[in-house]
Amino acid sequence: MTTTTEKRAPQAMNGVDTPTLLATINAVGAQPELARFTFRATNKWQLGTHSRTEIRGFYGAGGEQEHASTFALDGDHPAVLTGKDEGPTPVEVLLHGLAACLTAGIGNIASARGVKLDSVESTVEGEIDLRGILGLSDEVRNGYEGVRIHFRIAGDAPAEKLQAIVEQSRSRSAVYDVLTNGVPVDVTVEAV
Amino acid sequence: MTTTTEKRAPQAMNGVDTPTLLATINAVGAQPELARFTFRATNKWQLGTHSRTEIRGFYGAGGEQEHASTFALDGDHPAVLTGKDEGPTPVEVLLHGLAACLTAGIGNIASARGVKLDSVESTVEGEIDLRGILGLSDEVRNGYEGVRIHFRIAGDAPAEKLQAIVEQSRSRSAVYDVLTNGVPVDVTVEAV
Repeated sequence: MTTTTEKRAPQAMNGVDTPTLLATINAVGAQPELARFTFRATNKWQLGTHSRTEIRGFYGAGGEQEHASTFALDGDHPAVLTGKDEGPTPVEVLLHGLAACLTAGIGNIASARGVKLDSVESTVEGEIDLRGILGLSDEVRNGYEGVRIHFRIAGDAPAEKLQAIVEQSRSRSAVYDVLTNGVPVDVTVEAV
Repeated sequence: MTTTTEKRAPQAMNGVDTPTLLATINAVGAQPELARFTFRATNKWQLGTHSRTEIRGFYGAGGEQEHASTFALDGDHPAVLTGKDEGPTPVEVLLHGLAACLTAGIGNIASARGVKLDSVESTVEGEIDLRGILGLSDEVRNGYEGVRIHFRIAGDAPAEKLQAIVEQSRSRSAVYDVLTNGVPVDVTVEAV
């Protein structure tokens, strides 16, 4: 027996292939052009406020890639806004994106730090004054005034270490960055 | 026959109940507290980078509301990033939210302007350098560098009128506002 802490090779855990993940990060570090990704989606109006998005191909890791399947996502307005409620509202979709991004990061970071997760649950909410989008006020913004996300996380590590994993995920989250800092969006139109 | 343009009552069209929509806007104008909405989602980590979001209840129009059904949305990382590809990536989810928001607005605005839509299709893409989220560079942002959305729209109106409908939707889009201007996001953690 020994009391020294051994530096062990990372193990696969939490469903994360940690050795391959770390090898991927090293490969990208050595060849930065592999890090350039372009994600894409196509959307078709269905009826009323209902549309459907399909997501399949993307560019990254030096070439064209495809998801294992085509993801189809609906969006609509709820009945109280005279929609048909065929899917979540687009602003609810943003809440999903935020929670899914932070949680994916938690899965990866916990594994890299050797922490076995038992559960990660979050509730996320955003407040919005619809007078903006309804054109009733020019002083009210169109989007959320604020968004809050609360995590409950359990695993085989002290509370401070679990909290630090969430904080590290936040500090490296693509969606958190986009939502808090914004991104230029270019809209073009072809009337056919 | 007459050559004067009659001011007609709005008609339901494009699957939009335009009279009820306009009545809703008038009701909110008269009672602004009806415009206060809080949207919510709950997310649970599944395994690895895969999580699932459920969306059902929200507050708005003066009280608690529920969608017609519970919407379940998966998020994951793709295989090339050592995920299991059980759902779209969180950053792709943002592209869906943007397209769905602008397209819902197009449906409503076209109907209010008496324009019958034939089709609305969009492609949206975002470029991201993953050296940010992989922790390989402090000079690269975590999120998208830029997002582009291109609409192809057809309907019974001149091109200029169709283009103006898309522009009006952009100017009143909640998701466009959040993505371009950002929103404060508060993250709290409870280690259990």
